[in-house]
Amino acid sequence: MVVLSLFVRGCTLIYVQNKRNLLKCSKYGTVFTTGLALFTTKNELNTKNFMAVPITPLDRLAQRPDDMKTKMEVIIMEIQSEVCKALEKEDTVSFKVDRWERQEGGGGITCVLQNGKVFEKAGVNISVVQGELPPSAVAQMRSRGKKLEDGKLPFFAAGISAVIHPVNPMVPTIHFNYRYFEVQSGNETQWWFGGGTDLTPYYLNVADCIHFHSTLKEACDKHDKSYYPKFKKWCDDYFHVVHRGERRGVGGIFFDDLDTPSKEECLNFVTDCAKAVIPSYIPLVKRHKMANYTKVEREWQLLRRGRYVEFNLIYDRGTKFGLYTPGARYESILMSLPLYAKWEYMNQPPKDSPEEALLEVLRNPREWVETDMNKKQVLQ
Amino acid sequence: MVVLSLFVRGCTLIYVQNKRNLLKCSKYGTVFTTGLALFTTKNELNTKNFMAVPITPLDRLAQRPDDMKTKMEVIIMEIQSEVCKALEKEDTVSFKVDRWERQEGGGGITCVLQNGKVFEKAGVNISVVQGELPPSAVAQMRSRGKKLEDGKLPFFAAGISAVIHPVNPMVPTIHFNYRYFEVQSGNETQWWFGGGTDLTPYYLNVADCIHFHSTLKEACDKHDKSYYPKFKKWCDDYFHVVHRGERRGVGGIFFDDLDTPSKEECLNFVTDCAKAVIPSYIPLVKRHKMANYTKVEREWQLLRRGRYVEFNLIYDRGTKFGLYTPGARYESILMSLPLYAKWEYMNQPPKDSPEEALLEVLRNPREWVETDMNKKQVLQ
Repeated sequence: MVVLSLFVRGCTLIYVQNKRNLLKCSKYGTVFTTGLALFTTKNELNTKNFMAVPITPLDRLAQRPDDMKTKMEVIIMEIQSEVCKALEKEDTVSFKVDRWERQEGGGGITCVLQNGKVFEKAGVNISVVQGELPPSAVAQMRSRGKKLEDGKLPFFAAGISAVIHPVNPMVPTIHFNYRYFEVQSGNETQWWFGGGTDLTPYYLNVADCIHFHSTLKEACDKHDKSYYPKFKKWCDDYFHVVHRGERRGVGGIFFDDLDTPSKEECLNFVTDCAKAVIPSYIPLVKRHKMANYTKVEREWQLLRRGRYVEFNLIYDRGTKFGLYTPGARYESILMSLPLYAKWEYMNQPPKDSPEEALLEVLRNPREWVETDMNKKQVLQ
Repeated sequence: MVVLSLFVRGCTLIYVQNKRNLLKCSKYGTVFTTGLALFTTKNELNTKNFMAVPITPLDRLAQRPDDMKTKMEVIIMEIQSEVCKALEKEDTVSFKVDRWERQEGGGGITCVLQNGKVFEKAGVNISVVQGELPPSAVAQMRSRGKKLEDGKLPFFAAGISAVIHPVNPMVPTIHFNYRYFEVQSGNETQWWFGGGTDLTPYYLNVADCIHFHSTLKEACDKHDKSYYPKFKKWCDDYFHVVHRGERRGVGGIFFDDLDTPSKEECLNFVTDCAKAVIPSYIPLVKRHKMANYTKVEREWQLLRRGRYVEFNLIYDRGTKFGLYTPGARYESILMSLPLYAKWEYMNQPPKDSPEEALLEVLRNPREWVETDMNKKQVLQ
């Protein structure tokens, strides 16, 4: 949902695939089974598990297997497929796959599952785009401290973005987004990674929050013990529905402009975070998807989805910039919005209700897992 | 919904009134029955028909009956009451009245009817505020050509804003907003009026559009024959959901910065426009409120309400500035949002369906009534 959508514009849908019916990709033979070995011994890409053929032509990917642009595109294709399959396993409905191209270069693959038994609306989108950065985007990057020249700058961006809105109010909504950027300024290529995963429950379940945050922390800790506490706070600060003084949900991690210690190490970190999505979330789906609920819980879920819409349309950087860009593929940007939402004037949950308990946490973000920095705060 | 909400901040709700239970206002005796004669012979204000006691203390209003600030406050109180009563007559549910004050000066009266048989959510809000303009508002006004000094400038603003979302998909949504502004810059007081009324149908009914636009045109023509064509185009340009290339509805009138030919004449014009709301809209409510409809029409109405939310949260000036202002009374700003809304990925109405007919008009605004300027275009 975040920065990438900025570039999703001037797109034409060139390929609609209702069933998994890939072009003949299986000809690429066997693959190494460890690490990032997505190429065969003949340097051919194994695409048979992807949701659609990659945006970049296969021969170009094969020509530059060590380029970070290739690695990131392959990783997000893989994550997209894993996430869609993990979600389909919990439901009876399949993802609709739209592969689209962008006039100015690149394109995307948008997978949406709508009106499922378990998921009311789930969107998993990848985009791989290049072209010239619009001046507004350059200005925005400069304001974040990037040293960039004036004028139009060539860029490349590849990312995955997903929002999953379940049917059952006891199952939280999840959002994640991981992205890689390159910008050419003068003779220099600047690059960075960004991303995050965050959870938006309708009813507070402390065990869920601890499981979710612990899984993210584990992914972070493998790379740098300072990441989780830093990115957890960044997440609380970012997903802030300012006018209501509420966070969108119970947080997770969020980061941007990550360019140390090395490109490879950043990719490994982002990959581990993205791979943590399924183990952080699917157990919560399994745990609650059959939970009983009444109209009261459904109406509360719809009200909270209204707040989700408020955040995405008013504050979210990527959504805003994307939609302000003429010719944006708004269907891919707005797939993050829930199927239904509600706004009631002056809604106030009863005192000591489970709805009020959620609000309390949204107003005062908590520490869910112990870190070196918060030993005394956890679950106080 | 528009500019006024900018100043609705730092408010405390001081007075909640569930039934019409005004303070003893009837003591003010009889009134002149013509024109703007809202004061008694003893220079006392007749408030007995208002939804609540005015925001400005009655003795202060009585001290300055000829001041435009007083006149505008009295007019919007009167319009609020007339509109609420006209809507209540069509439904079985009454308006809830919230009178609130603003720490920095002034306040508002928010009337909301929710979950009616005819109106799903109807909000009619007045606000009367003064204080210092935030620099962002000064900048915005300068960008519209106002010559204002640097720094914080004292201002006064009074306005009425309403959005009516009916239950039946055959009854359109209506929005109107009329406002008066004063800003002190140096020794000079600058003033202007703004406002508009616009219609958002879910199903196109040409007779409704003609009736609605004709009623607005009649109000405009009494003052200046150039107003209707100019303000009709302004309305089409303003209520533009840019990323979708659609207008929010079938338009109406919209204007800002009106300061000619005189203060009095502007007030008369704004009053006539506001008084045209009931005759432009209530006949459509009566005509369609009992119309048959199925789930198909309801779901389409919800989708279109999603577009309404998109416009209000992404583009509407007043909503945006209001919500970005710390401490905003967001309940009054967001009362414009529908009770329920829907977002479906890649929704496309069937060819030659009534839903497609609406989209066609939203994509290509039409001329609904003949003017000196459009003789050849009307209903082509």
